[in-house]
Amino acid sequence: MTDDGFIAEHGRDIEAARQRIASRVRHTPALRTDIDERLILKAENLQVTGAFKVRGALNAVLRLHEREPDVQTVCTVSSGNHSQAVAYAARACGMHAVVVIPQGANPNKVAATLALGAEVISDGVTFDNREEFAARLAAERGLPMIHPFDDWDVIHGQATAALELLDDCPDVEMVIAPVGGGGLLSGTALASRYRGASVKLVGVEPESADDASRSLSTGTLQRLAATPATMADGVRVLSIGERNFEVLVERGFADAIVTVSERELQNAVEEIWRVGRLVVEPTAALPLAAFRSGRIPNPVSGRVALMLTGGNVDPAIVSSILEVERPA
Amino acid sequence: MTDDGFIAEHGRDIEAARQRIASRVRHTPALRTDIDERLILKAENLQVTGAFKVRGALNAVLRLHEREPDVQTVCTVSSGNHSQAVAYAARACGMHAVVVIPQGANPNKVAATLALGAEVISDGVTFDNREEFAARLAAERGLPMIHPFDDWDVIHGQATAALELLDDCPDVEMVIAPVGGGGLLSGTALASRYRGASVKLVGVEPESADDASRSLSTGTLQRLAATPATMADGVRVLSIGERNFEVLVERGFADAIVTVSERELQNAVEEIWRVGRLVVEPTAALPLAAFRSGRIPNPVSGRVALMLTGGNVDPAIVSSILEVERPA
Repeated sequence: MTDDGFIAEHGRDIEAARQRIASRVRHTPALRTDIDERLILKAENLQVTGAFKVRGALNAVLRLHEREPDVQTVCTVSSGNHSQAVAYAARACGMHAVVVIPQGANPNKVAATLALGAEVISDGVTFDNREEFAARLAAERGLPMIHPFDDWDVIHGQATAALELLDDCPDVEMVIAPVGGGGLLSGTALASRYRGASVKLVGVEPESADDASRSLSTGTLQRLAATPATMADGVRVLSIGERNFEVLVERGFADAIVTVSERELQNAVEEIWRVGRLVVEPTAALPLAAFRSGRIPNPVSGRVALMLTGGNVDPAIVSSILEVERPA
Repeated sequence: MTDDGFIAEHGRDIEAARQRIASRVRHTPALRTDIDERLILKAENLQVTGAFKVRGALNAVLRLHEREPDVQTVCTVSSGNHSQAVAYAARACGMHAVVVIPQGANPNKVAATLALGAEVISDGVTFDNREEFAARLAAERGLPMIHPFDDWDVIHGQATAALELLDDCPDVEMVIAPVGGGGLLSGTALASRYRGASVKLVGVEPESADDASRSLSTGTLQRLAATPATMADGVRVLSIGERNFEVLVERGFADAIVTVSERELQNAVEEIWRVGRLVVEPTAALPLAAFRSGRIPNPVSGRVALMLTGGNVDPAIVSSILEVERPA
């Protein structure tokens, strides 16, 4: 399919997703802060359940519910925010959610998923085996899988954050978003192309999780050998999905993907907390870390939007970051 | 003067203040969060300098600058956010600020005031002697004093936050705000009366700083014997001002003043951080603590707005709060 046809088709689906989820998500604010006058912060940490993930999960679960009203239970696999999002979406549809979460995931996200009424399965689940584990479980129990990123319905839901951003700030010249599986970044790419906005799109990942960066530079889908050690628990996935690869790499809708060190990330978290006065999880600080790094190719002189993806913080991590910065 | 005349006169001044400061402050968002569906959070933690105080300080310094363009330096006394606000306002007018800050004040607020170019005087200044210290200094050096709350220009500036709130959320039935010196609460009272909004107005102070509550119940201006020991460093003042007393008590524009314990306050801070995903200083959590206490007389069934006054946090306090909540 030509790019134009592809964009038009997905654009229609994104508009439909926005209508479908409108009553259950927040139009989050595009904030100016004391961090930097050029920056707009799209505050998805203030989204229902504390992360953008609810947009995609709701769109996918609501579509499933429309098409197959007899399905009672959905299944997913996630280290955190997508788990909560699917639990929330299932509850909104009167359905049940089974969520596979690897051991060692952010305990607050696990607790929140349980509090939303989901069944959480963690025994024997690691960051490395979770995909196969969940696929086997879904097959055994005959459950539809709501994939966290490699699913068009999910991508279209995530894209609605960018629609809001472009409505609120039409003068944005660059959007920077974290990339784990690539759901948000590919949704943002589709939304901005659909809107005809001449926006540069930059993805960010931790140095230890540089698969997307290598996928973009090599033009082939790269996969990490093992789960990366990074405080950004929202992007601890081994590779982007096939659909995300098509949008970002094959069709070339991502302009650049930048990697940042853990130290740069920690500084960015601290700056958003202290100067921005917003609670974000480390993953959500990846865009500021990239902005501060000076390594974004062809920077723009105008307004830059950062996707603050979530605010579900592991208190132990926050505490350690604040300890470092505690004045003598 | 009749109440009607008084309200009309101050209403005009508040509208003028809004115009005067518009280009230098943010119209902060009125946020919905996962905390409670009934609540609207007026996010003055996202204000320039991280607190509402910049509204009043800017209005006062800009008015002074209009009336007496030859004045080069202003003086003030504050334990924190008003210091930064006056430093910011003075710099905006090309003026110099001398700020008296008691020893033991939040170190982040002191550092921020210095970073804004102000001269900070702390030697020999305590929470108890600071008012006389500053008055003597101002007299010796012939400097105009920008009082943190007992000043109509300051009150009119603080009132602009409520104007924005009433514009954004006309269905608000109750507004809850911290009360230290009473600048924000009296400004909010004047703004809502001026707008003809039938809004209940509730002040909140820590149990250890219950002077305003006693002033309201006795009808006479009560004063604390010593600086209260509370984590809410923004309300460590001994009494409300005379102008604030007139608005809140004499004219009866405050419907109630509630006190909360340090434990209730700590829980509210933690809830705003964790569930609201906003960085607030303890003072800014007083309204949620009051809302959660169940002790607000004649509660309303509709929408309630909380004034989140500021986000300039002492990291040591935050860290200690998060430690308490750290999962085992």
